[in-house]
Amino acid sequence: MQENGETLRLSLLLTGNELVSGDITDTNSVFMARELAGEGLPVDRKLIVGDQFSSITDALSLLAENNDIVIINGGLGSTVDDLTAEAAAFVSGSKLVENSLALKHIEKRFGRKFLANNSSFNSQIKKQALIPESADLLDNPVGLALGFKLKIKQALCYFTPGVPSEMRAMLRQSILPDIRRHYKLESSLKTSRLNIIGIGESQVQQLLNKNISPEIWDRVQLGFRADQYCVELKLSINDPASEAVLEDTLSQVHKLLSGYVFSEGHSLPETVLDLLRKKMKRAVFAESCTGGLIASQITALPGASDVFEAGIVSYSNQSKEKLLGVSEIEIENFGAVSQEVVIAMTKGVLEKTGADVALAVTGIAGPTGGSEEKPVGTVYIGWGDLDNIQTRLLLVRRERTIFQELVSAAALDLLRRYLLDLDVNAIYYFDEISRKRL
Amino acid sequence: MQENGETLRLSLLLTGNELVSGDITDTNSVFMARELAGEGLPVDRKLIVGDQFSSITDALSLLAENNDIVIINGGLGSTVDDLTAEAAAFVSGSKLVENSLALKHIEKRFGRKFLANNSSFNSQIKKQALIPESADLLDNPVGLALGFKLKIKQALCYFTPGVPSEMRAMLRQSILPDIRRHYKLESSLKTSRLNIIGIGESQVQQLLNKNISPEIWDRVQLGFRADQYCVELKLSINDPASEAVLEDTLSQVHKLLSGYVFSEGHSLPETVLDLLRKKMKRAVFAESCTGGLIASQITALPGASDVFEAGIVSYSNQSKEKLLGVSEIEIENFGAVSQEVVIAMTKGVLEKTGADVALAVTGIAGPTGGSEEKPVGTVYIGWGDLDNIQTRLLLVRRERTIFQELVSAAALDLLRRYLLDLDVNAIYYFDEISRKRL
Repeated sequence: MQENGETLRLSLLLTGNELVSGDITDTNSVFMARELAGEGLPVDRKLIVGDQFSSITDALSLLAENNDIVIINGGLGSTVDDLTAEAAAFVSGSKLVENSLALKHIEKRFGRKFLANNSSFNSQIKKQALIPESADLLDNPVGLALGFKLKIKQALCYFTPGVPSEMRAMLRQSILPDIRRHYKLESSLKTSRLNIIGIGESQVQQLLNKNISPEIWDRVQLGFRADQYCVELKLSINDPASEAVLEDTLSQVHKLLSGYVFSEGHSLPETVLDLLRKKMKRAVFAESCTGGLIASQITALPGASDVFEAGIVSYSNQSKEKLLGVSEIEIENFGAVSQEVVIAMTKGVLEKTGADVALAVTGIAGPTGGSEEKPVGTVYIGWGDLDNIQTRLLLVRRERTIFQELVSAAALDLLRRYLLDLDVNAIYYFDEISRKRL
Repeated sequence: MQENGETLRLSLLLTGNELVSGDITDTNSVFMARELAGEGLPVDRKLIVGDQFSSITDALSLLAENNDIVIINGGLGSTVDDLTAEAAAFVSGSKLVENSLALKHIEKRFGRKFLANNSSFNSQIKKQALIPESADLLDNPVGLALGFKLKIKQALCYFTPGVPSEMRAMLRQSILPDIRRHYKLESSLKTSRLNIIGIGESQVQQLLNKNISPEIWDRVQLGFRADQYCVELKLSINDPASEAVLEDTLSQVHKLLSGYVFSEGHSLPETVLDLLRKKMKRAVFAESCTGGLIASQITALPGASDVFEAGIVSYSNQSKEKLLGVSEIEIENFGAVSQEVVIAMTKGVLEKTGADVALAVTGIAGPTGGSEEKPVGTVYIGWGDLDNIQTRLLLVRRERTIFQELVSAAALDLLRRYLLDLDVNAIYYFDEISRKRL
């Protein structure tokens, strides 16, 4: 066992058939990993197994051998498929016994009278008081199942219930303080995250390679994460003494990637909403192929009413005429997906609503509707105010819903660039037209 | 290695610092586990490790020893932290070589000329063509990184890229067919999923207990999964001889839950789209608090243009007047969230567009904007045609984005009930007003 936080090895074990079968998405370990990272205790690995006794014992043995700390989540309930306490006793060579403190906790929550009057229920519930003899209890301030701590091989193992609220309370109120006490830890890790759009991951990598001296990366850890529409650059340090280096590196990176970094940690819709608020502009959207997704992304955010006036989802050609005043002749001559029509949509939605700035999108989401001249994936984006409407043509050949998300992201980024007076010729990796300029 | 699908042991290995750190929620393995279970290949365990070379090699060795099949996801990209191919070569004792087919795939997607003119970019991108010598390529129909198949110890290992759309296409189009071929599998498991809305899980359970003889459940497995807005009832059999029993049970359940079962496997937006198509009706939406989410859910589906005319996101009061013709006096007298205004919105959007049916929503999404009389969560939904507009009041006190999803679901279900001439007094578990009737 290490007595130094930097080299502590910590892994998570999650149990539950519903987790391995994909019936539910694992969010417990997301919470746990973030909380632990915030304490300077990065998770080394996560192992997820079903509710079978042998799966749990195998996993426990494996992780206890290779870690200083293991946090186990799930399988402490009262039903037949809750086998974690039994497995823990088996692996640690301890007996499973009725713990008197655990019993008191249960009696307190249910009432002794209730339990006495409901004997069959009683015996089932009391299963939760069976705990390995050598274990120490962990308090559950919000629920029935108690957790416990047990030394298995070289590892300190913390057993927590699967109910998210119970696990969270136990992690924060019992486990983290216990780990800090045990290992005499102070929090040291610091992380910055930059969200980047309009430039590719490998271009970013090249820019950093060329301009930042390589020895920096001995002290600052660099990580990339490619999201659907953006790249997240993560810079972190483990040593508090490197804080100045991190700050300095951050400001260098900001300079190198100026205009491409849209936020530290905020999504693109959040960034655009903030920007509209700062510039005191009210926005409207006229959407065809994105079908309301841009409006929906903005209105999902609290405070949208400060900056969002209205959206028109002019899906049919007729609705472009009726709701936005696009002329039938324009649609006939140039097609609904054309620069002329996207300009008319932008102008139309501004005139109908009286808003300050507009964003308009028309394109072919597919899978059908393309032609040789305008294949599936062709999109025109328009933006601006009544005095200055700009447009851009993109080709985004992706599956329909991904197409819609990528086009919405490009549109919001173009609006962001317009509001900040930045170059609007950004390269979107998913747009075949701008990628050719690389 | 087993030659029998029922006893094949299959595990997943997911790589990525962002997965162990909790920076993102793992949804790839949820998709994989469900797809695999649908093929009679339940996942045994999932192991999640970071991007360090030794973590990946350790995990690969471990899983290859204990499984017949391992599917690996992540780390096949072009940046320095993409180490999976190298780790696979190391563990299998194979060399990492530039694969000519992989190179061709990359050249095809970027253009040879482009690569020749961008040499530094070129070398980085070409990293993705480095593949263990003994591996077989897996096609990536939608992206740049190719996957590969490699025998490690006793296990068939399939390596897939982390981008969800690429992994999905590769799993369905290359890996599952390959596993079926290799192990001569036939899917024997049969599963039916009924999607239910407007009635609670415990009511469903009671109805089944009362009306279906218990011995049925020895042959048909019953499972519930509560989704955000609906309940999924899963009926499955493992024995082909039980097929007739399954069919019979299914038709009993359909009769018992008639009107509440909206589909077998389709989402609510898909169901409404299909229904509109069958009834040959064109629909319009006027959304305030749902902010375009309903339009966005419908237009995410191929074929939306067959039935969807337009949507108006009348977010501000002014836009309700300008775009939908709601009178200022009505808004002043009754408030923007009122039965009178939702009727005016429904009527307005029908008149402005000439569509056959409309759905309108106005409510208080929060976190601010509530009053004592109309708390946050108050919603009016209106629907119908110009001759017959109906309304309903709901109280949905949930966090903003969940509120929007739940309200959109209720609205689409009310439209579905209107189109099918069903009772529109369904009970939504998330609506405090209808829940009181329980």
